[in-house]
Amino acid sequence: MGNVLVAQSGGPTVAINASLAGVIEGTLGSRYDKIYGSINGILGIKNDNVIDLTAVVANDPRFLKRLKTTPAMYLGSCRFKLPGVDSNDPIYNTLFDQFNKYQIEAFFYIGGNDSMDTVDKLSAYAAKIGSNIRFVGVPKTVDNDLCVTDHTPGFGSAAKYIATSTMEVIFDAQIYDNPSVTIIEVMGRDAGWLTAATALAKNECCDGPDLIYLPEVPFDRDKFIQDLANLLKEKNNIVVAVSEGIRDDKGEYISAATGTLDNFGHAQLSGAGKTLEYLVKDKLGVKVRSIEVNVLQRAAAHMSSLTDINESEAIGKKAVDIAEEGVTGAMVTMERISNAPYEIKLNYAKIHDIANEAKEVPQDWINPEHNGVTSDMVMYLKPLVIGLPDVEYKDGLPVYVSREN
Amino acid sequence: MGNVLVAQSGGPTVAINASLAGVIEGTLGSRYDKIYGSINGILGIKNDNVIDLTAVVANDPRFLKRLKTTPAMYLGSCRFKLPGVDSNDPIYNTLFDQFNKYQIEAFFYIGGNDSMDTVDKLSAYAAKIGSNIRFVGVPKTVDNDLCVTDHTPGFGSAAKYIATSTMEVIFDAQIYDNPSVTIIEVMGRDAGWLTAATALAKNECCDGPDLIYLPEVPFDRDKFIQDLANLLKEKNNIVVAVSEGIRDDKGEYISAATGTLDNFGHAQLSGAGKTLEYLVKDKLGVKVRSIEVNVLQRAAAHMSSLTDINESEAIGKKAVDIAEEGVTGAMVTMERISNAPYEIKLNYAKIHDIANEAKEVPQDWINPEHNGVTSDMVMYLKPLVIGLPDVEYKDGLPVYVSREN
Repeated sequence: MGNVLVAQSGGPTVAINASLAGVIEGTLGSRYDKIYGSINGILGIKNDNVIDLTAVVANDPRFLKRLKTTPAMYLGSCRFKLPGVDSNDPIYNTLFDQFNKYQIEAFFYIGGNDSMDTVDKLSAYAAKIGSNIRFVGVPKTVDNDLCVTDHTPGFGSAAKYIATSTMEVIFDAQIYDNPSVTIIEVMGRDAGWLTAATALAKNECCDGPDLIYLPEVPFDRDKFIQDLANLLKEKNNIVVAVSEGIRDDKGEYISAATGTLDNFGHAQLSGAGKTLEYLVKDKLGVKVRSIEVNVLQRAAAHMSSLTDINESEAIGKKAVDIAEEGVTGAMVTMERISNAPYEIKLNYAKIHDIANEAKEVPQDWINPEHNGVTSDMVMYLKPLVIGLPDVEYKDGLPVYVSREN
Repeated sequence: MGNVLVAQSGGPTVAINASLAGVIEGTLGSRYDKIYGSINGILGIKNDNVIDLTAVVANDPRFLKRLKTTPAMYLGSCRFKLPGVDSNDPIYNTLFDQFNKYQIEAFFYIGGNDSMDTVDKLSAYAAKIGSNIRFVGVPKTVDNDLCVTDHTPGFGSAAKYIATSTMEVIFDAQIYDNPSVTIIEVMGRDAGWLTAATALAKNECCDGPDLIYLPEVPFDRDKFIQDLANLLKEKNNIVVAVSEGIRDDKGEYISAATGTLDNFGHAQLSGAGKTLEYLVKDKLGVKVRSIEVNVLQRAAAHMSSLTDINESEAIGKKAVDIAEEGVTGAMVTMERISNAPYEIKLNYAKIHDIANEAKEVPQDWINPEHNGVTSDMVMYLKPLVIGLPDVEYKDGLPVYVSREN
């Protein structure tokens, strides 16, 4: 009887710990013996910073339920890219020695594109040296930019938080009877999925954002000002959602255009939202404010999607299932069977076809004016934000778990 | 049988509509006949932009429950200061003509300091002309800076959102094993109550912010860098909460110190958080990020405090009660009877003693190092964030009410 090892890597989401809970639950119900956790991704294996998760679960009956709704990464993260499999780099020897020391039969890596690259290389190296260890990737990213899977764990919760916050910003913006422009800057350097989620704020009780700009199409400053000027003839309070990654037709980030200087003489880059705030103030002279949603969009576990949390957990369990079946070098994926009723099927795909490729918003889900999204996009997004997990509260605040406390 | 009129004014909170619901409920159970709502504060009376709230309630049985948890202001807001009572300004005639036209016996103004000034002046004018109309103020402000009352409606919800978001930012900041500084900028130009609420993030599952800087004491840049350098010897990921209104010992805003320029040549002011981000980068060279919580701290109804929402509603009802008893020129207040069990008593005070005065954080609730708050502050804050209201959801998002939809 062998053991399994799990680690987390890349930027945080609120659903990565639900996937960790799923991997733990899957292991407890499997033929595997213990489950170990590597601290700070693959670096924990290298540095022998490994904990016994079987013991953690045994010591605290509330641990798994709390873990499911805890934001960020219980095991910590790293940004570490493995060298090529044929590089003869000693790190591979080190890692496989560690796997043997802990009698590891399967390794699960919860992360984004870079983590999938690691799984790909480790499985290739295992094949090269004739090792039977299984390497399975468990996807996560708020950006929703992984290929092959319908959507990524973590995205639905971020989308829900962003859509709700957009509604609340719109209510806030509408109280005065004077012209105003409010710009919400949403994460997404290359993919506009999260910014598109602001469209969910258009519903029976809210008009939604008036304009939405994604990085998949070039951003035209003059057209933007014209869009605003037209709208201001019809209504007073305009709310705009922009992706941090919008670029002009030369491919230059809008955020790079301002030459701001701090008081030490360093050039500082303003974000897209702040840059457009200056532009609107200059060109239209109306009251204008920009809001950067910032890290809260990937950390706000108090507003996560039950659908996302449950799927993330299921994907963690599925990873253990396919490892037991002998699958390696693969990532668990979701296929959408139908929108209404919403139904997905878990599957897996060879990582070699996924890693290092990004999935952008399709051009035909962006409106012809390039300032909004289509109903197809809204239909795609809608099921992903349904439901609120049962988060435990104490003294008015959520209860989360951490290794230290 | 006469009618009553209600209006909202000043900046939004998530509890102003709960107070509006309370005023409506109080009126429905009183000897008064109809309740009218003035759109955009006192300007709606002047411009005859008034709606019949009795009819709105009668037409939608779900209205009051939804209104209680809707952010911002259902009736809209204004920033309008009445001239002096003895100015002979024709606005007073206009307003009192309108009161007579709608047979108004009592006017309720939900707002902050400026709105209380309006209530003070209207009641003084009524006394001057021998009018029997009652004028009662219903307090609100996220800043918690109104005198006489133990705390203000709207503050508890903002405190809960800020404390929760601080916890989530701390979890987010801790995932990497490298030194980092994260700076959270919280609202509060002159009073540090909201920034102090980040201290609630210190609990069984979270270390809380490492340093907290309030505007009530001078901010020393060198001491700040020394505080950070000392902490970085003990731990990797430092989280700092600062009020937007921190000032140096000459009274200059820290936000005013940076001479940033936008691409039109205008000087732009960076906020305190961004300014300290530049300072840390320059002096300590560690990874640093600043987060401006921005308008979400006053708009995030999805994370409001049940205690706050219930108190805000009760205060609205109380305002109608005291108007019926003949009180005028007064604001409803809360007295704290005890902390454990938490108990408050509603009362009222002459507005003349309240308006235009601000309540700061007491010096002895700030630690001697000027970088944190005391246990007295935490005891004061703790009861105010308890409980989550029963917010209605549809398609995964909260259901709020607006006049348009």
